Amino acid sequence: MAKLPPLKEWVEEVQDGAYGMKWRVKARLFEGKSPFQSVAVYDTVSHGRMLLIDGLLMTSERDEFVYHEMIAHVPLFLHPRPRRVLVIGGGDGGTVRETLKHPTVESVTLVEIDGMVVDAAREYLPSTSACLADPRVSVRIEDGVKFMAAHESEPFDVILIDSTDPIGPAQPLFGPGFYADVKKRLSADGIVVAQGECPFYRLDVQAALRKVVAGVFGSGTLYNYHNLTYPGGLWSFVIASKLPRDLAAPDPERVAALQAGLSYYNLETHRAAFALPEFMKRGLR
Amino acid sequence: MAKLPPLKEWVEEVQDGAYGMKWRVKARLFEGKSPFQSVAVYDTVSHGRMLLIDGLLMTSERDEFVYHEMIAHVPLFLHPRPRRVLVIGGGDGGTVRETLKHPTVESVTLVEIDGMVVDAAREYLPSTSACLADPRVSVRIEDGVKFMAAHESEPFDVILIDSTDPIGPAQPLFGPGFYADVKKRLSADGIVVAQGECPFYRLDVQAALRKVVAGVFGSGTLYNYHNLTYPGGLWSFVIASKLPRDLAAPDPERVAALQAGLSYYNLETHRAAFALPEFMKRGLR
Repeated sequence: MAKLPPLKEWVEEVQDGAYGMKWRVKARLFEGKSPFQSVAVYDTVSHGRMLLIDGLLMTSERDEFVYHEMIAHVPLFLHPRPRRVLVIGGGDGGTVRETLKHPTVESVTLVEIDGMVVDAAREYLPSTSACLADPRVSVRIEDGVKFMAAHESEPFDVILIDSTDPIGPAQPLFGPGFYADVKKRLSADGIVVAQGECPFYRLDVQAALRKVVAGVFGSGTLYNYHNLTYPGGLWSFVIASKLPRDLAAPDPERVAALQAGLSYYNLETHRAAFALPEFMKRGLR
Repeated sequence: MAKLPPLKEWVEEVQDGAYGMKWRVKARLFEGKSPFQSVAVYDTVSHGRMLLIDGLLMTSERDEFVYHEMIAHVPLFLHPRPRRVLVIGGGDGGTVRETLKHPTVESVTLVEIDGMVVDAAREYLPSTSACLADPRVSVRIEDGVKFMAAHESEPFDVILIDSTDPIGPAQPLFGPGFYADVKKRLSADGIVVAQGECPFYRLDVQAALRKVVAGVFGSGTLYNYHNLTYPGGLWSFVIASKLPRDLAAPDPERVAALQAGLSYYNLETHRAAFALPEFMKRGLR
């Protein structure tokens, strides 16, 4: 599949036909079409290897640590003793990798709808996906919505919805039926976190998602992180807890024990992530 | 000067020949070449009007509020009674506009090296520049470095270095001689804030600038904000105070009094801005 691209080939991501980002490609490593979407991995001059789904950049080797640390460690340092973790989506493996850094975690189940994403990540993004071979990890190539509705198992302490945008196969992951199932599958002190879009460009989607989550859990809270390669730079997750909990107060001793292995997350960025710009607060009311 | 561009014309900003951003242009409103640099104002489909200097995007109508609120209000809400404010650079007027929201401010001096920037902003960016006509504002078309070294006047309570990147005419604004002059021109309880680049892409420049500022003031502290239209999305300012001061503790009553007129800044974003991601803390040591 790999072939030498023409000199100065660029990969571009354009939103609404009006604004975009571009990266210069060194090599096209993989291009495929699954039953669900197109999947590609390119090596770039400036950002290492990149995974694209339907032409949208999902993850780059240069900055994937930010997204993956912030989706995983915020809930995992809040939960008193996370043992069983479920990841929906996230076929690149980065969220699983961060989850496995927590010594209390005994099992991680990854439910990814598209086997081509997992295969491409295993082959071409080893620094992101190597953890998928860990004996604590079960990879299931299944529809996350059906998995959540149908399977019965021990409850999960933390569920991470590591999804693409609410278009294509990820759309049901933004609906109330899905979150009702999430709540059923969580343990009594469980926490859910989901990819929550960009406040500059998709505040309406954020407000709708927060409302869905709050409708099921009683509350839904956004927290922010920075993304080099997603449009707008400022992006959010939504978090909900079955028990009342101070979401800005992770366990400092457990953070200190893992700090040397983290590049973005620390006690300060955890707390700061919950400080929303005024225009977000207004738009989420 | 204005002319109808070809359909689907784009303005692009490319870094290091390797990655970039692009915006679709509706109209080229102004294009000029001053003795210092090229200056352009374009109207875009998605981000309103944009000011470009030497092809680099300086400000867009859609998100300039973030930059301008964060450069101005962080120091202005920390200083107990800011009366005299100096802005170096910032010819578009956005920083002056935010400064004038503080009722204690009696005078703002804007020192911009390039009259073409001020003229273009006055003509084509009225929502950013209208404040320049305020009677409290003096606009001086002068070299900020020479102004700082030569002019004697009453000291300034707050000095804001609203500069471009350390290339071209802004380069001396990143050096130790300039900051020694800044310190001399500040009142005994004065505060300086300067544009501080992007930690993802220019951590080396940030570390050098911080060291320069700390060498003069005893300490230099970075704080972050989000930028829709600058590469990397996460950008910083550097702040230094002549008096020891809790930089994360603005005056809550004064913030509350102005909050309705602010779209990004609030008490929480002020405090959160000082929480640096782990990779920044390490790179700035």
